Amino acid sequence: MKRVLVTGAAGMIGRKLVERLSGDGQCDLTLHDVVSFGNDGNSVVSDLSAPGEAEKLVAGRPELIFHLAAVVSGEAEVDFDKGYRVNLDGTRLLFEAIRKIGSSYRPRVVFASSIAVFGAPFPEAIGEEFLNAPLTSYGTQKAIGELLLSDYSRRGLFDGIGIRLPTICVRPGKPNKAASGFFSGIIREPLAGQEAVLPVPESVRHWFASPRAAVGFLLHAARLDSAKLGSRRNLSMPGVSATVGEQIEALRKVAGDEAAKLIRREPDPLIMRIVSGWPQNFDAGRALALGFRADASFEDIIRIHLQDELQKTAPPPRGLA
Amino acid sequence: MKRVLVTGAAGMIGRKLVERLSGDGQCDLTLHDVVSFGNDGNSVVSDLSAPGEAEKLVAGRPELIFHLAAVVSGEAEVDFDKGYRVNLDGTRLLFEAIRKIGSSYRPRVVFASSIAVFGAPFPEAIGEEFLNAPLTSYGTQKAIGELLLSDYSRRGLFDGIGIRLPTICVRPGKPNKAASGFFSGIIREPLAGQEAVLPVPESVRHWFASPRAAVGFLLHAARLDSAKLGSRRNLSMPGVSATVGEQIEALRKVAGDEAAKLIRREPDPLIMRIVSGWPQNFDAGRALALGFRADASFEDIIRIHLQDELQKTAPPPRGLA
Repeated sequence: MKRVLVTGAAGMIGRKLVERLSGDGQCDLTLHDVVSFGNDGNSVVSDLSAPGEAEKLVAGRPELIFHLAAVVSGEAEVDFDKGYRVNLDGTRLLFEAIRKIGSSYRPRVVFASSIAVFGAPFPEAIGEEFLNAPLTSYGTQKAIGELLLSDYSRRGLFDGIGIRLPTICVRPGKPNKAASGFFSGIIREPLAGQEAVLPVPESVRHWFASPRAAVGFLLHAARLDSAKLGSRRNLSMPGVSATVGEQIEALRKVAGDEAAKLIRREPDPLIMRIVSGWPQNFDAGRALALGFRADASFEDIIRIHLQDELQKTAPPPRGLA
Repeated sequence: MKRVLVTGAAGMIGRKLVERLSGDGQCDLTLHDVVSFGNDGNSVVSDLSAPGEAEKLVAGRPELIFHLAAVVSGEAEVDFDKGYRVNLDGTRLLFEAIRKIGSSYRPRVVFASSIAVFGAPFPEAIGEEFLNAPLTSYGTQKAIGELLLSDYSRRGLFDGIGIRLPTICVRPGKPNKAASGFFSGIIREPLAGQEAVLPVPESVRHWFASPRAAVGFLLHAARLDSAKLGSRRNLSMPGVSATVGEQIEALRKVAGDEAAKLIRREPDPLIMRIVSGWPQNFDAGRALALGFRADASFEDIIRIHLQDELQKTAPPPRGLA
């Protein structure tokens, strides 16, 4: 049995990752989150940024660590102290706890980074050598996590890989107030027969991955031969680049005109301004060469949502079934 | 009188900066370093990374802060804890101390960063959008300092500018054991009639600025209109790109054949390997457009050393006199 630690295990991606890991039956799982969740045998509820908590989590010397715990973008922007405490200090304390165990312990660490490490102005497609110049505190904290991960890996303190997740779409659950929420909302709500608000023009382009693809990235990162990474241990994940217009067209194809008609245009200058600073398209050639696989199309992203969340019948997605 | 704080004021660049600032007679200077230095009225000897020390330094609300204090590259590589404590925690504590004073206080912060934020492989000339992928802990800590500086500035907590200094040449004083030491040694020692060891081939190319140019960068950064920077507040400084062969040729022109003959070739594979990961050339167009000025040539770099350190007569350097 492989000893595996997952931080942020109660989050949306965390829960789906844990489901996959549990299904394999090959893992001795330790699940961590700051909020109480389920009653799995080996779950720990604690604040990773509190003194001593990271040490407790790695005391069992997990061979594989998925570090997903983070305060999300919007909250890190509103609450400066909390964002830096959890996203920067929490990450550093985890890395330090690993280091302090000593040279006989060198786990694989998979760090969930984000395309928020990039900030406008952008080239047409963001390549692997493009500057990390984040325009949010969340992106700053993730970029710092990447730098620490590289340095700790270079020094042989652990074997790290950072993966920059695209915007996850379709996020299951209720609408939230994140500025990016509409990207999922305009698909999720119409599929449930409900109206959705679109605050930006159809020309807005963004970079997407389904929750299932995101879990696939994490699992692939866990088993990747890190010798192939060289010194650059942080990678932009492949995704689907789609305009809002293309999203709506895909919805129409999968669920018909009646679904697409549930999208109500209500331009919001604030959201338009925020979104204009976000990445639109990537050259993820390096991740593709290393075997990471994106969703095949935005239509497939919608079908995955139907299959995984709504258990509706839909044609199986290509490549990710 | 402008209230000015200089951290790392006892360092080589710090001392030269303070000399210039004192000469102006326009500054109410607070000088800080971890080592005792001089007996200037307003000097503070303390460890910036110790709790409460940063608060004391900014309690007088300096309008301009030069943050130069750092553990150097070699030491940060050998002593992991000290490097992160001084270069990362010290910088963050200083930034936090400024933030905690509150919204009425928004000083200009000039942060001395380094070309060590970059790591090989490189393009032919490193541009402003090239990834920070450092290959040392020192470079990692400086890159994190840049990210924090950008985020604190974006949030209006202070008005920051980070400048990536080229390798300073000719460093005055005794030879040291830094891997980069020979770049200065092969000029400084022959000018003093002493033998110098060259551990790399003449084809090795690197990026240089004189101490006088470095002080010029800091002073220009202090008075620059930061509105011109936009959200990208860290800049590679202009420099002189020269091969070791070009360095030696310049020495020959300025000081004659007898000086150049004092350079003894003694290849060192370790130093050759370290140096191969260092930047060689930059496109510093953005800094030039903002008015930063490099030395005119490597010959001028040598003449500046003669003027500023050895008080020998030499033709005045162009542009920096």
